[in-house]
Amino acid sequence: MSAIAEETLRPDQRLSVGVLGPYPGSRKAYEQGSRPDLRVPYREVLQSPTPGAAGPEENPPIPLYDTSGPYSDPEADIDLARGLPPLRRAWIEERGDTVELEDFSSAYARERARDPSLVAVRFPHPRRPRRARPGANVTQMHYARRGIITPEMEFVAIRENCRLQALREDPRYRELLRHHRGEAFGIRLPEEVTPELVRQEVAAGRAIIPANVNHPELEPMIIGRLFRVKVNANIGSSPVTSSIAEEVEKMVWAARWGADTLMDLSTGRHIHETREWILRNCPMPVGTVPIYQALEKVGGRPEELSWEVFRDTLIEQAEQGVDYFTIHAGVLLRHIPLTARRVTGIVSRGGSIMAAWCLAHHRENFLYTHFEEICEIMKAYDVAFSLGDGLRPGSIADANDEAQMAELRTLGELTRIAWEHEVQVMIEGPGHVPLHLIRENVEEELRACYEAPFYTLGPIVTDIAPGYDHITSAVGAANIGWHGTSMLCYVTPKEHLGLPDKEDVRRGLVAYRIAAHAADLAKGHPGAQLRDNALSKARFEFRWEDQFNLSLDPDRARAYHDQTLPRPAHKRAHFCSMCGPQFCSMRITQDLRAAAEAEAGMRAKAEEFRAGGARLYREV
Amino acid sequence: MSAIAEETLRPDQRLSVGVLGPYPGSRKAYEQGSRPDLRVPYREVLQSPTPGAAGPEENPPIPLYDTSGPYSDPEADIDLARGLPPLRRAWIEERGDTVELEDFSSAYARERARDPSLVAVRFPHPRRPRRARPGANVTQMHYARRGIITPEMEFVAIRENCRLQALREDPRYRELLRHHRGEAFGIRLPEEVTPELVRQEVAAGRAIIPANVNHPELEPMIIGRLFRVKVNANIGSSPVTSSIAEEVEKMVWAARWGADTLMDLSTGRHIHETREWILRNCPMPVGTVPIYQALEKVGGRPEELSWEVFRDTLIEQAEQGVDYFTIHAGVLLRHIPLTARRVTGIVSRGGSIMAAWCLAHHRENFLYTHFEEICEIMKAYDVAFSLGDGLRPGSIADANDEAQMAELRTLGELTRIAWEHEVQVMIEGPGHVPLHLIRENVEEELRACYEAPFYTLGPIVTDIAPGYDHITSAVGAANIGWHGTSMLCYVTPKEHLGLPDKEDVRRGLVAYRIAAHAADLAKGHPGAQLRDNALSKARFEFRWEDQFNLSLDPDRARAYHDQTLPRPAHKRAHFCSMCGPQFCSMRITQDLRAAAEAEAGMRAKAEEFRAGGARLYREV
Repeated sequence: MSAIAEETLRPDQRLSVGVLGPYPGSRKAYEQGSRPDLRVPYREVLQSPTPGAAGPEENPPIPLYDTSGPYSDPEADIDLARGLPPLRRAWIEERGDTVELEDFSSAYARERARDPSLVAVRFPHPRRPRRARPGANVTQMHYARRGIITPEMEFVAIRENCRLQALREDPRYRELLRHHRGEAFGIRLPEEVTPELVRQEVAAGRAIIPANVNHPELEPMIIGRLFRVKVNANIGSSPVTSSIAEEVEKMVWAARWGADTLMDLSTGRHIHETREWILRNCPMPVGTVPIYQALEKVGGRPEELSWEVFRDTLIEQAEQGVDYFTIHAGVLLRHIPLTARRVTGIVSRGGSIMAAWCLAHHRENFLYTHFEEICEIMKAYDVAFSLGDGLRPGSIADANDEAQMAELRTLGELTRIAWEHEVQVMIEGPGHVPLHLIRENVEEELRACYEAPFYTLGPIVTDIAPGYDHITSAVGAANIGWHGTSMLCYVTPKEHLGLPDKEDVRRGLVAYRIAAHAADLAKGHPGAQLRDNALSKARFEFRWEDQFNLSLDPDRARAYHDQTLPRPAHKRAHFCSMCGPQFCSMRITQDLRAAAEAEAGMRAKAEEFRAGGARLYREV
Repeated sequence: MSAIAEETLRPDQRLSVGVLGPYPGSRKAYEQGSRPDLRVPYREVLQSPTPGAAGPEENPPIPLYDTSGPYSDPEADIDLARGLPPLRRAWIEERGDTVELEDFSSAYARERARDPSLVAVRFPHPRRPRRARPGANVTQMHYARRGIITPEMEFVAIRENCRLQALREDPRYRELLRHHRGEAFGIRLPEEVTPELVRQEVAAGRAIIPANVNHPELEPMIIGRLFRVKVNANIGSSPVTSSIAEEVEKMVWAARWGADTLMDLSTGRHIHETREWILRNCPMPVGTVPIYQALEKVGGRPEELSWEVFRDTLIEQAEQGVDYFTIHAGVLLRHIPLTARRVTGIVSRGGSIMAAWCLAHHRENFLYTHFEEICEIMKAYDVAFSLGDGLRPGSIADANDEAQMAELRTLGELTRIAWEHEVQVMIEGPGHVPLHLIRENVEEELRACYEAPFYTLGPIVTDIAPGYDHITSAVGAANIGWHGTSMLCYVTPKEHLGLPDKEDVRRGLVAYRIAAHAADLAKGHPGAQLRDNALSKARFEFRWEDQFNLSLDPDRARAYHDQTLPRPAHKRAHFCSMCGPQFCSMRITQDLRAAAEAEAGMRAKAEEFRAGGARLYREV
């Protein structure tokens, strides 16, 4: 077997055990939209009844937002070599504003498609690329501004609601739907997400639906401050390690653990082919940083980069179906000296590459000077901008400094230009920020970038914990999400140290689902607390299996419990090994409940008594 | 070997590998105070030079606050069967207000000491107990209010400064000491902690120094809002699992990973003997929840509890040297009905026990009715109160409810009474709180309890992640610490699921050191950012070993790095496997530094040019 074949994902390759199949105790379900081909996935965690004196009390299923795509559907016929069904194809075709091309527009893509040495690594069933008809604009923002509600908009509206309206009419959920009001800093989360609300938010630029016409496989999702806080996972091979097969498996794995979007940051060889395998099998929007591949094409020498190489790379990737591009167009020549006295200089890969180019040529960043041409490409495929924070701080010391803020103002200027082209935009943010400077980041972004959705990496709130940066950054992410960031880019335990493996992806994603959910709760999302309430009720009632199944990581919760109490009978026990049966507060409280209710009656008596008897009550 | 012997810590038993010995790349050091026997421990992380063009640049050692006690000192002669040296003995004796007793005052303690069946499990070199002379008050608060600066106060002042004043006069630290101003919500952290400041804070009740006269082995530390945020670790056997030997090893392990105080929550048999082994070997203050042992003494039946049994238990433990007691005196009869409609009822073990007692007898909580007698015991040994939040919320749904707030007001009333007795007090807090309700917790505590130090368990900010509650709670802990909580009680990944093992203790503590440090940074602690700055500089300069050694968990950081780049040469490599050499932003930035500095000169030229040439600058 050749070296290439060894690192290839073969058409007959299976995903590993644990990657496919339903979640424990859950049922995959779909909500039907206004047309037969609009079926919005969710899952339901099924619960067992509460044993009770007057017969068991039913506990209703809990619907959960589901990022896992068809991989968790036992009915789905998964074939990685064919890819997922193109669920959006009819929607795109019906609009009549795109054409299928005979061949790739990118010279590089054509070359790769014809290279016989790549047969073993190439995705075997490529789709023909699609592009806007000449002069057409095919972005969701373009439709939204014309008052058009697309199927994508309806899809995300249904998805965001996650059955909340139906639950409100079902008395079994009445207590479970109680929630704190929250604090959302000047906005009010909608009680119901309507397709019209989605349209308005996309039209205003306050939300985006990344959905390239060449990625019909994706299940649409929305990124915006009025909606659930989202999580992005980064994967990608590096020149030092990992293969296509591993990356595809990581993608499916990331979907399972709750990634709303995925960035493919591959930098090794076969970037193009890896991306094709990922896109054809990916139910989430996919983002990339095209400058990475452009740099590969010029032998890794930043000074060799050119607009022409970059432009061809954008088109290559847009025709594969990438849904958003990180573009470091705010790294201007005049900003670079502002980083000279930083503790950690420029820590964005893309930012450092562009800074190197600018200084080598002593010319302004070509991503900035060609920004309008980039917009023309983006709108022909509906690729969204993720305007990169090339000058984000890489240490607590550098947080919120002038380099960062100067770039942010430039990103605001670019946002206005992109919106003139009706191209969707989100804004990337830091990085490394102490807790007390987080709020300023959100406020400045909302102001400078006209409320375009904010998308932050962490931030980590201290530099001193390499190996635990999923935790340092979950602290920052929960806070920044609460203050108004729309999507959180995860950080894994390997950050600053090495490339994450599958276990790191899982740990990073769980940490970020915690952060995003904590933010939703704090913002007062009307449906968020349902899951907490259901899990806490299960916990209080010693329904261990329900508690596990409702948790973010049922497998781990079960495994931890079973380390000390492994027998099946322990799953019904009214205690765990933490306190043992005698000291279980929940058991004691259950025993007290009846007594306490009687007490309510006696309390009235006690009040009477006390009113007459001064301090006697205390002494007795 | 008998069943008992198997679970005993034998006098000849050694600690496991990795528990003893210096931290990697660090030197144990002591700062001398005003008297020869006042030597305050810290550690220094030694750094390697930065390779540079004009010769290497020296990087100074970084002093760090050190909780590990003699266990990290290669000079120390550790013998678990003899215990640590009683470093405070002379200080206590010199005060002349205590007497050494012939025997234990507690009937139970005398009985245990004479029971021949306990020889195998008993600590072999017990100390004689000490108690205040009749009528004397031996608390640090009592001394502080009389204007006396004790050696303990001087010790904590030196410890809190951690060499900051010396560093300020050393030019090598000038850049490293730069830090953000922080936001500390109405207080201003001192630039220097003087013994007099410590005295004032202890006198005012805003800080405590838990230091029982029967625990002379401890290295004094302070808990208060003006000082570093502290972390408590809970350990303790349960009836279901774990042995004395394991618990002692967990104690040493917890010290190593950064526990400022330790709570021994053992509930199995041999509680008394386990505690003796722990106290005699523990450099941190030790807290307990005496009601747990009292309950054991009455066969686990809450209704059988009595003031007499509890009183003897307090004296038993106070004479062993416990430094603070959690006392659930705020769980009043009238508060119990307020929990009746909660999702998770009463989740504090102590709270549920007391509620059960109150309802069984329909009498007021005897901890409340006997509170002044408890104060008399506390002040005879200097045991501090940790007023327990027996009604803390156990779910997001129950956060900040009336049961919790009613109890908090009662704790404020009890704080005033304790202070009349000059007994030190801290106040326990929740628990489970969504992010947006955290601040209210701190504000209410400061108001209701007259700024007595707040000591919170987490809080966890969502209920949905069992198995990851060290993370959900680190989010809450960092926030509540920032807002003014003085000490954070850690939560391990096993919370809600089972008893933590050593690895869980490590992970819980690292998560909480992150939270406490993030809080210190956000509050603007003048010395906190030094470690971040030093680590970030090491990171930027590819001094991998220095980066590892400065981190909270050097072993894990190194291991993660080595998973992909194991060879020694990689420890000098200017990249890691995350991005590989070509995409390393830090390498590119280093290459750019010289260029950027030149650019600063060219920028002036560019400005001139632009002033004349309109948009030309952008297009070129």
